[in-house]
Amino acid sequence: MTTAPLSPTARTTVNRGRNRLVEDRAELHRLLDEALVAHLGVVVGEHPVVLPVAFAIDLAGPDAGGSLYVHGSVAAGWLRQAGASTVCVTVTELDGLVAGRSSFHHSMNYRSAVVIGAARVVEDDAERARALDLIVDHMIPGRAATLRAHSRKELAATAVLAVPLLEASMKARAGGPVDEPEDVAAGVWGGHIPLRRVSGPPVTAEDAAGAAPQDVVDRAAALAG
Amino acid sequence: MTTAPLSPTARTTVNRGRNRLVEDRAELHRLLDEALVAHLGVVVGEHPVVLPVAFAIDLAGPDAGGSLYVHGSVAAGWLRQAGASTVCVTVTELDGLVAGRSSFHHSMNYRSAVVIGAARVVEDDAERARALDLIVDHMIPGRAATLRAHSRKELAATAVLAVPLLEASMKARAGGPVDEPEDVAAGVWGGHIPLRRVSGPPVTAEDAAGAAPQDVVDRAAALAG
Repeated sequence: MTTAPLSPTARTTVNRGRNRLVEDRAELHRLLDEALVAHLGVVVGEHPVVLPVAFAIDLAGPDAGGSLYVHGSVAAGWLRQAGASTVCVTVTELDGLVAGRSSFHHSMNYRSAVVIGAARVVEDDAERARALDLIVDHMIPGRAATLRAHSRKELAATAVLAVPLLEASMKARAGGPVDEPEDVAAGVWGGHIPLRRVSGPPVTAEDAAGAAPQDVVDRAAALAG
Repeated sequence: MTTAPLSPTARTTVNRGRNRLVEDRAELHRLLDEALVAHLGVVVGEHPVVLPVAFAIDLAGPDAGGSLYVHGSVAAGWLRQAGASTVCVTVTELDGLVAGRSSFHHSMNYRSAVVIGAARVVEDDAERARALDLIVDHMIPGRAATLRAHSRKELAATAVLAVPLLEASMKARAGGPVDEPEDVAAGVWGGHIPLRRVSGPPVTAEDAAGAAPQDVVDRAAALAG
């Protein structure tokens, strides 16, 4: 596990809004642990394509700074494209709407990480199986161990990409608006609306019976807050 | 306002997971109305960069299919880059975690739209002011009309990009897992955990006084559910 600072290269250096820069790598790891969806950017031909993906990280993974894994169908065009190129993985959690005293000072509260790196198609069977388990456990901790083994057919249909976590940057904003002094002095109201993601109780499938297993119950409860 | 079908071109044609394809343009508009953050992909040099952005749409805007607007600092490198190129704007709402009976059939419930188009730097002052109002009103409906006018300095510091909504595709997944028949027959539990975004009550800034205005109260209440 690396202790390298964030933003170690020019392409992940934050130039604008440095007041919102997060430089603690542990904060990056916390965000990547909490967020459920990443947006993967790939260059296809001459234009970018950005797709939402499930993901997981393995700080003990073989890539510099640890590995970020995404998976998809072996038949997916974007995945074939990504496997031979530099990709950008961006993870954002929205924490609130900031109602400034002026249009200009409206903003959002958020935490967002940008990871840029050469994507590697994971070929090793053990690493691939581990990555797929991590992606399931990232959704619902502890669940992978309760499921049957992958079938050969399922593994053959699934591609896994790894992206090194080393080149990353993170920004965050929290709290109320930062307004012009004259707008504050004029007594205009300013503030923010906190936002968070919550879960409902587990919903049993129509073709299933019995109570939800403990891992699912625990996950729903942890997200219910 | 266009009634063109979604996915009108090869680069927005969905090849994988066509069972999750949404072909009703009104659904796209609903998603873009509900979501608060977009992920904008731009090619910088030879690699993609994906950044979270506030946005708004104007179905009566001058671009084909209507206009999607994002804004940023005139000094931001990605914005200068985007203004002369084809960009991808992806908007995703996460609706749930799908706990299948096998690792392979774990999934997420979501709605996601991908818009690809040539970004246009908005130069017209009236369109720029309208776009900025729309972005504020997208966060908190009705708020722009309650705020003081933009100052010249604020307008000069802000760049607005427009992307045509015509080339878009949308996918959605809802409900429980679609599992292998033998896993269902074996009596393994399957189901899903619904997720949604909720707000807390408005928080008044430390340097403000008085009650939150009605637009902020209404927005927080609408998102509280």
